[in-house]
Amino acid sequence: MAIWLEQASGDFEERFSAFLSTKREVSDDVNAVVKAIIDDVRTRGDAALIDYSARFDKVDLASAGLRVREEEIDAAVAATSADVLDALRLAAERIEKHHARQMPKDDLYEDALGVGLGSRWTAVDAVGLYVPGGTASYPSSVLMNALPAKVAGVPRVVMVVPAGGGVVNPAVLAAARIAGVSEIYRVGGAQAVAALAYGTETIAPVAKIVGPGNAYVAAAKRQVFGQVGIDMIAGPSEVLVIADRDNNPDWIAADLLAQAEHDLGAQSILVTNDRAFGEAVEQAVERQLKTLSRSQTAAQSWADFGAIILVKDLASSLPLANRIAAEHLELAVADPDALLSGIRNAGAIFVGRHTPEVIGDYIGGSNHVLPTARSARFSSGLSVLDYVKRTSILRLGPEQLAALAPAAITLAHSEGLDAHARSVSIRLNRGG
Amino acid sequence: MAIWLEQASGDFEERFSAFLSTKREVSDDVNAVVKAIIDDVRTRGDAALIDYSARFDKVDLASAGLRVREEEIDAAVAATSADVLDALRLAAERIEKHHARQMPKDDLYEDALGVGLGSRWTAVDAVGLYVPGGTASYPSSVLMNALPAKVAGVPRVVMVVPAGGGVVNPAVLAAARIAGVSEIYRVGGAQAVAALAYGTETIAPVAKIVGPGNAYVAAAKRQVFGQVGIDMIAGPSEVLVIADRDNNPDWIAADLLAQAEHDLGAQSILVTNDRAFGEAVEQAVERQLKTLSRSQTAAQSWADFGAIILVKDLASSLPLANRIAAEHLELAVADPDALLSGIRNAGAIFVGRHTPEVIGDYIGGSNHVLPTARSARFSSGLSVLDYVKRTSILRLGPEQLAALAPAAITLAHSEGLDAHARSVSIRLNRGG
Repeated sequence: MAIWLEQASGDFEERFSAFLSTKREVSDDVNAVVKAIIDDVRTRGDAALIDYSARFDKVDLASAGLRVREEEIDAAVAATSADVLDALRLAAERIEKHHARQMPKDDLYEDALGVGLGSRWTAVDAVGLYVPGGTASYPSSVLMNALPAKVAGVPRVVMVVPAGGGVVNPAVLAAARIAGVSEIYRVGGAQAVAALAYGTETIAPVAKIVGPGNAYVAAAKRQVFGQVGIDMIAGPSEVLVIADRDNNPDWIAADLLAQAEHDLGAQSILVTNDRAFGEAVEQAVERQLKTLSRSQTAAQSWADFGAIILVKDLASSLPLANRIAAEHLELAVADPDALLSGIRNAGAIFVGRHTPEVIGDYIGGSNHVLPTARSARFSSGLSVLDYVKRTSILRLGPEQLAALAPAAITLAHSEGLDAHARSVSIRLNRGG
Repeated sequence: MAIWLEQASGDFEERFSAFLSTKREVSDDVNAVVKAIIDDVRTRGDAALIDYSARFDKVDLASAGLRVREEEIDAAVAATSADVLDALRLAAERIEKHHARQMPKDDLYEDALGVGLGSRWTAVDAVGLYVPGGTASYPSSVLMNALPAKVAGVPRVVMVVPAGGGVVNPAVLAAARIAGVSEIYRVGGAQAVAALAYGTETIAPVAKIVGPGNAYVAAAKRQVFGQVGIDMIAGPSEVLVIADRDNNPDWIAADLLAQAEHDLGAQSILVTNDRAFGEAVEQAVERQLKTLSRSQTAAQSWADFGAIILVKDLASSLPLANRIAAEHLELAVADPDALLSGIRNAGAIFVGRHTPEVIGDYIGGSNHVLPTARSARFSSGLSVLDYVKRTSILRLGPEQLAALAPAAITLAHSEGLDAHARSVSIRLNRGG
């Protein structure tokens, strides 16, 4: 049973604020362990990777080899069913097309004074993609993380994935091939992150590391940040569904459960202006829970973090939605456009009754790596922009320098930076 | 005396690698102190700010008031010389014009299937700008951090600045007025960062915190990250000058010293293909050092971290420059365009002999907040993009859902996520 919050009740603001600040994640303090692993990989390289993989993943990389060979990827593709391969290819095509529109353009121009100014975008030289092992090893995530890098023109995309018991999910390898991943290594955990950041005999270092992982992987990413870039540290997933009473309660219940089944920290929130509809959804959730393969996870996260918020009218949902700043926001209402323009904070918005969030997870074309835990207030989902960087360019001739020099010299002196002033004045042949 | 590295010598790669990994910063472990301050501000609010300001800044905020009043800003503007005000206004105008070109455009479209896709950009609701106190309190930095927020359309830009001994640099207040800062509070350190992140009775919380600061401020920003967004944690500044022998050695020496005077961790590197020119620059540095107000700082950072790298030819400088990935890169050569296209990693490039880096610090129009410590390999300078976030939008009707459903359902089942599959299939009237 999820909690109910009613806007009309006197303690709503207090209860809503408390709800907003609920922590859904216990982050174990694994920093010391992770630091030791990183130091060891920096010192011993491949030998450390082999040792940790034997211990944590029960796999003998000394004989299997660190790098996954082309013929192994061939075999994985052959072992993946045709309909999954077709679905991955369709998804890849749609993701690639959508992300191609995100590629920023260089902007080089001269202003009225003749000063050359500009922004030039270049791809990151090499990117490492972490893929979790076991049941959280999702081929769709491989596409979502690797394809924007390919679109950005990253020359080298390296994937690491732990081979628990020697096995890597074949569909993950197939997705990597479809997404144009350049190299795959069967290593995971903090040791894989260390190898990507600092390099070993076999794995050349990258400039940026992306992708989800457990507490050890997250801690390792934080620790190597600076040496390399990292993407956001994703928290548990969440969905906010704003729905009027003219929805089929079963559809909305299914959407809430799609989120809840992810993991124990997942959060599903329904905002509605109709109490009876809210109750109908709640009953539909209970019914559907009985037939889910992951019903235990879904039931638990719905009970712990699920919520039904009853608002006075749909317009009242907007300020709440902006404070929640959900990763995923569904607008299942008769006139979604009336709400759409009022949403400022959301990772992705799914518009109308026929756009379940799951379409965005797989096949819509937009990215499914999105800001969690209210961070949509200040950050964006993964995009091509995460794989490029901008260099500014400034170009002056003697005339432009003469025009701008006085202001630069004035400001330099006012900040007490004499050498700054001289670096400009000396070029005016007026001495230092 | 800076070190010399010669590409022609046998141990160059080894020495260059060691040079690249030189740490220029000792980060004190202030995490425990900072955590206590943050917790205290969260608990006691304004009262904690008043206590810490009395202790660290020797200022009585209970009587002065936390917020800087409009008439105080009026007085600061009146106390700033006309030529400094004019220079700040010219800088602001140029910065604003340049940054207006960075504003990303929404992209909403329908694909061939009729699926609505899109990216919508919105400004961050509220931004906090940290400005250091004392000698590092630079009005130019206020412009560089605040104006892109204004261009982005951030409704609320809050500045915090410690008032050591009760005083805030008048030019900093004048710059804040020129840059359109909405609120100014005379509080600094970890306590100011905590107030911006969590709010107090007087200071409403923001969604993102930017701006430079000391070790306490940097640690506080790291600790509140997640609650709010933060910009990069900037390290000491650096310049790489690629110069041929046809430069005036005094000009290049002045550029190296403009960087070196910043602080003890600053780094100035000359790459040249002419030994005699390198020696002439070295001598010019020694001469100019004698007449600088900050000669002690400049001499020390030049001695500790300065370098002259002698390359075989100018083209050989490109791979080195890409590995150094300097914050600032000057191309003081006869044909800068021949090198420009080969540079992949640099925060900003200053093209030709008449573009000293200092122009970019103040008046060029581009931003002077740039990636340090080799992070230009994976990150960019501050821009309008740091003050906006992107929401993706997906919109399907029944036909589009029917077209994409099979692939989504296939992938959901292949990942073992039954509720995901049901959330799509239930809308096809084929049951769960």
